[in-house]
Amino acid sequence: MIKRLSQIHQELLETYDSEGGINHVDGINLPSNVEIIDVGQKLLHLLFPGFFTGERVHAGNLKNWSGYMLDQVHQRLLAQVTKSICFGYPNEPHSRHVEQAKDAVMGFLESLPQIRRMLKLDVHAAFMGDPAARSHEEVIVSYPSVLAVALHRVAHELYLKEIPLIPRMLSEYAHSRTGIDLHPGAKIGESFFIDHGTGVVVGETCEIGNRVKVYQGVTLGALSFRKNEDGLLIKGLKRHPTIEDEVILYAGCNILGGSTLIGKGSVIGGNVWITESVEPYTVITFDVTKQEYRRFQKGEVLDSELFKGSGI
Amino acid sequence: MIKRLSQIHQELLETYDSEGGINHVDGINLPSNVEIIDVGQKLLHLLFPGFFTGERVHAGNLKNWSGYMLDQVHQRLLAQVTKSICFGYPNEPHSRHVEQAKDAVMGFLESLPQIRRMLKLDVHAAFMGDPAARSHEEVIVSYPSVLAVALHRVAHELYLKEIPLIPRMLSEYAHSRTGIDLHPGAKIGESFFIDHGTGVVVGETCEIGNRVKVYQGVTLGALSFRKNEDGLLIKGLKRHPTIEDEVILYAGCNILGGSTLIGKGSVIGGNVWITESVEPYTVITFDVTKQEYRRFQKGEVLDSELFKGSGI
Amino acid sequence: MIKRLSQIHQELLETYDSEGGINHVDGINLPSNVEIIDVGQKLLHLLFPGFFTGERVHAGNLKNWSGYMLDQVHQRLLAQVTKSICFGYPNEPHSRHVEQAKDAVMGFLESLPQIRRMLKLDVHAAFMGDPAARSHEEVIVSYPSVLAVALHRVAHELYLKEIPLIPRMLSEYAHSRTGIDLHPGAKIGESFFIDHGTGVVVGETCEIGNRVKVYQGVTLGALSFRKNEDGLLIKGLKRHPTIEDEVILYAGCNILGGSTLIGKGSVIGGNVWITESVEPYTVITFDVTKQEYRRFQKGEVLDSELFKGSGI
Repeated sequence: MIKRLSQIHQELLETYDSEGGINHVDGINLPSNVEIIDVGQKLLHLLFPGFFTGERVHAGNLKNWSGYMLDQVHQRLLAQVTKSICFGYPNEPHSRHVEQAKDAVMGFLESLPQIRRMLKLDVHAAFMGDPAARSHEEVIVSYPSVLAVALHRVAHELYLKEIPLIPRMLSEYAHSRTGIDLHPGAKIGESFFIDHGTGVVVGETCEIGNRVKVYQGVTLGALSFRKNEDGLLIKGLKRHPTIEDEVILYAGCNILGGSTLIGKGSVIGGNVWITESVEPYTVITFDVTKQEYRRFQKGEVLDSELFKGSGI
Repeated sequence: MIKRLSQIHQELLETYDSEGGINHVDGINLPSNVEIIDVGQKLLHLLFPGFFTGERVHAGNLKNWSGYMLDQVHQRLLAQVTKSICFGYPNEPHSRHVEQAKDAVMGFLESLPQIRRMLKLDVHAAFMGDPAARSHEEVIVSYPSVLAVALHRVAHELYLKEIPLIPRMLSEYAHSRTGIDLHPGAKIGESFFIDHGTGVVVGETCEIGNRVKVYQGVTLGALSFRKNEDGLLIKGLKRHPTIEDEVILYAGCNILGGSTLIGKGSVIGGNVWITESVEPYTVITFDVTKQEYRRFQKGEVLDSELFKGSGI
Repeated sequence: MIKRLSQIHQELLETYDSEGGINHVDGINLPSNVEIIDVGQKLLHLLFPGFFTGERVHAGNLKNWSGYMLDQVHQRLLAQVTKSICFGYPNEPHSRHVEQAKDAVMGFLESLPQIRRMLKLDVHAAFMGDPAARSHEEVIVSYPSVLAVALHRVAHELYLKEIPLIPRMLSEYAHSRTGIDLHPGAKIGESFFIDHGTGVVVGETCEIGNRVKVYQGVTLGALSFRKNEDGLLIKGLKRHPTIEDEVILYAGCNILGGSTLIGKGSVIGGNVWITESVEPYTVITFDVTKQEYRRFQKGEVLDSELFKGSGI
């Protein structure tokens, strides 16, 4: 038994030699997911003081509490950002990495007050946009949109500073917790609200205006990928749509393509597919009355063929 | 560097003063998400003894184990409910808050035996409704429906007692773990089963009968919101549909509107959109044969235009 | 108060007697979810050394680190598999259970090197398939597809060894973290990539070829269930489709039925419904141009009826 186990160990070790690309051995140490998630949570504490901490935050301890929290975020994020810059820019001297990391993290922290201003508008947009919302506090403690959008605004700042790995790790943490997949590259305006949110996908090159409201299952995606002469995907083109101010996107609608623009004040109904631009103040809804249905009465229900089109 | 950091700290503190609404400083301490999740997990232990605990539960320790667990839930839930009642009813004297909280929590705990009876039927419905289910035990330890529906039945009891914040925090915990978003206000009958479940949304004012089966991506939602003369959303109306007994809702179907009623024994096929009531024992399926497709052969596949309608 | 609480306790205890089926008292202790998740995470460490551990893995400690990790997985998985075999085969002598468990776990561990070879191809498929992917490392640390597919390949091996409960517990852990629901029974070929992934459902009897690419919200499901003369679902039939090599399945498409086969190299567009087989190298896209829309101009937007088909 021990013999079989050490045999397996031997074979695994051989794959560690042979199967490069999914080992990370002797490389620069990568940022740690555990640490990134912890930093993400501490940032949520700083951005919404007193909402997510068990400990009570009050005027008497606010200054010390937030100073300590900010210092923690600074130290720990700096350690992770340094790792990711070492990984991303292997040919630069380490001293340069350290300087880059310091500047990037400090510059990022300087954006926190502005991010807080944005988040206040996002929370208010959620409260105004959902008849089920009872209070701003309920929105902050229980709406997935708040967590997803707050971490997106944070990840987007790090993305703009061209820090490798970490922005995606933060957005994937939000995706994992909420089912909302916002690529850190997406530009998102003020007063943004995603209701329910499960299955929402917003691509890297999307541009979203102010006061936009999005429901579960909405995809802002690409139509197709350009390949180069080697047949490899070309990276970095605008592949995802532009959404102007005050647009509402209902559940499960799909808006696709880098040149697709949804004009100001438009409303796209549930399950509608859009692959071309739409004029401002247009409402497009899927015409339920023209759907091709098949109706059957009681006796027939048992015939399994009727279930054609059912999913599962 | 330290100078820049304390500069940032100063600016953050100013936003804590100026940006009210996303601070919770000097307010009543809110219920803690960490505690609510812990109470939710302990309730799952009490409702399914021996399934989720590492420690073994047997006849010899069942009485002490469950007595201890119940006492833990009582103490910790009482502390959180008291906070949420202080928050929700700020103008009442604190002594009143404490009494309200005691009554609400005790009344809630009195509903646990009945919730267990309901859950037994839910688990059996899952076993009977899924050909892949091997045993009731497999359903309990690995079906997201069990966790989502159990926490919903708990959250709904707390919702009926008009406890602020906590019902939504519990349902959002379930949503985060399962992708199933059941508003605590929804009335759900016996023998309820959600298969797979990711993306399911059930709105606050839904009424669901007995022996209803739901698949992933089903939305039971609102058609539109009424606004008052100030243009603000009116809260508290019946906005979501009524589903009668023995209805099956297949993947991705959408049923919308507060006056929409799906009659007993009906089957709504995958991706079907319903915005008006349906007679009992009606089967409505999306007519795949009438879908407008475009088919192309091999050579053309590379033409990116063909990918229109793809959602990346 | 204490009186009411012990009254509740008494009633709960009575339901533990009466409501069999959702108690697991005096039964064989079931595998622990906490332990299964921990083993799953340790397996991810072994399969991607140095990516998910905070501690640095390097040539100097690789042998000891991996040997230790492998031994941990062996011990802890063995304890859980023994429990699940005791549960699944109650009529066999315990000595037999222990032997079965030893063989199953050792046989499973022997598949790890091959699983690593498969995962290397999966990671490369993700990198090649997504224009937003910057590096293989980014794919491994932040793409949900990697976690879901890695745990699927592990769970599938345990499923083939007919170990009860644990395969589903592992796949549900992946589902909970990624929104991707891959049944452990599904056969999945090489170089498999799921982009975004939220809402993907792959049924137990699916067969998927090599170099297949899948987007969020895709369902590979059953059309209907056969029942026996007692009206009970028949378990174990092929209910789910077969997908040949090099097929691309875009967001939200549904492919249903055990005899449905998607031919090699085909492309199924977003939201397309397929319930019959498709020839090789066919592209089927939803014809957006033939969708029935209703368009309205500005003034009308306020009329709530326009929102028909919106899914809140």
